[in-house]
Amino acid sequence: MHLIADNIQPLDRIIFEAMENRNAFPIQKWVRFCEDAGANLIDINAGPLNRNPEQIMDFLVRTIQDTTDLPVLIDTTNPKAIEAGLLANTKTAIINGISLEPRKLEYILPLAVRFQVDAIGFLLNPDGHVPADGDGRIEAAIELYGACRRAGLPKEHLIIDPVLVPVSWQNGLAQNRSILSVIQQLPDVLDFPVRTLAGLSNLTAGERDVNRKAVMECAWIPMLALSGLSMLMMNMTRSQSVHMAKTCRTILTRDIFAWEEIEP
Amino acid sequence: MHLIADNIQPLDRIIFEAMENRNAFPIQKWVRFCEDAGANLIDINAGPLNRNPEQIMDFLVRTIQDTTDLPVLIDTTNPKAIEAGLLANTKTAIINGISLEPRKLEYILPLAVRFQVDAIGFLLNPDGHVPADGDGRIEAAIELYGACRRAGLPKEHLIIDPVLVPVSWQNGLAQNRSILSVIQQLPDVLDFPVRTLAGLSNLTAGERDVNRKAVMECAWIPMLALSGLSMLMMNMTRSQSVHMAKTCRTILTRDIFAWEEIEP
Repeated sequence: MHLIADNIQPLDRIIFEAMENRNAFPIQKWVRFCEDAGANLIDINAGPLNRNPEQIMDFLVRTIQDTTDLPVLIDTTNPKAIEAGLLANTKTAIINGISLEPRKLEYILPLAVRFQVDAIGFLLNPDGHVPADGDGRIEAAIELYGACRRAGLPKEHLIIDPVLVPVSWQNGLAQNRSILSVIQQLPDVLDFPVRTLAGLSNLTAGERDVNRKAVMECAWIPMLALSGLSMLMMNMTRSQSVHMAKTCRTILTRDIFAWEEIEP
Repeated sequence: MHLIADNIQPLDRIIFEAMENRNAFPIQKWVRFCEDAGANLIDINAGPLNRNPEQIMDFLVRTIQDTTDLPVLIDTTNPKAIEAGLLANTKTAIINGISLEPRKLEYILPLAVRFQVDAIGFLLNPDGHVPADGDGRIEAAIELYGACRRAGLPKEHLIIDPVLVPVSWQNGLAQNRSILSVIQQLPDVLDFPVRTLAGLSNLTAGERDVNRKAVMECAWIPMLALSGLSMLMMNMTRSQSVHMAKTCRTILTRDIFAWEEIEP
């Protein structure tokens, strides 16, 4: 299970100002923190990008790839900004992301084909809402897979995000439970070892107590890992959750184990 | 997932002395602590019981049932002590336990039939060693199930413990991973919703750092819970692990959730 840092995002005031002012240093400092904390990929969430979307994404990709060799996720809904990011990319970039929403299929999916890069496919309905249950997500996965193949995207380039919902939603626990089952089923349903991604931060959205967030995240991480999740997107400053994710990776992949590997 | 307290055991010096001196108070105090901490059952591990095994188990069952209505597990390898515990029992008792070891099948299994109580069945080879892998445990489960049925034990009285091993064993992680799969498979293999039990303390045997123990236990608990484990035997003083087990129960069973249920 690879860890994707979701820390490069404009709700962080330092990142926001650095984007606006094209100030590389604070962004590079954050990226180095994430890499040191164990991130295997860096999500570049540029937000809505109302002004100068192409220039900002170009700046972010260059700035981040100047300081790390980790793959980057180009995370925006703006196709022009995605294209600018892919043109700036000199290492490994992933589009984050596509879905059954018509604008995504029309304007973003073709970029994945043209640039021959991986794309995160969110299991959403065409109206952008999350499906009501696991069956709805499986249907969305099958349709999205079909749309990708028809557009000429090799199946190995599709990474599926079944979209965890906040546990505080009326049926949040049940929806997330069904997502564990979706993650387990997808390789059989699509008949290839499709990679899956989950964004952890959404789980605890709306809760302010960081200890409660930590307990909740640390309970879901092993369940997601055991279900076969390939990539976990998370806040790399949440040291308990990061530690748990690394421990699960050890538990599920190692032949030989020494207690020294576990941070006390 | 029900929680079984494994705190009543003679390696605890206070418990040991209370057993030897037939002093009810320290034992009842511990049982109340376990119940307050969330235990749903109390394991009575009387140890090897070299002297006066019947009197000690009789004393323990009476003492504990005087202070709680929780079911008790009568945990010893001595058939006479088990019989004494079952004769003393006035509430709910479970034999802990039986296995394919000939002495267990000959002397302990018939007690489960005679007293019409549940019995924990350990997935061990007839020589008392743990099977090498998951397949060995499945075979042991099928054989043990057959032996129980031939002895006249209704299948619903069998609770299976696949026996977690220390993660520090040479193949400890791999064995425990295979156990997760065994827990998932057993209801299909035995063709009824067989209950399963796992003893958590064995996982971290040999490690002294309590923080490392906590991280390791907290990573395995959600995986065991997601695999369908019915009962988790644990040290109720390990508050992080207890908290994690309760959170997993909430995650996996609740329709409606409020953040207030999670202890911060």
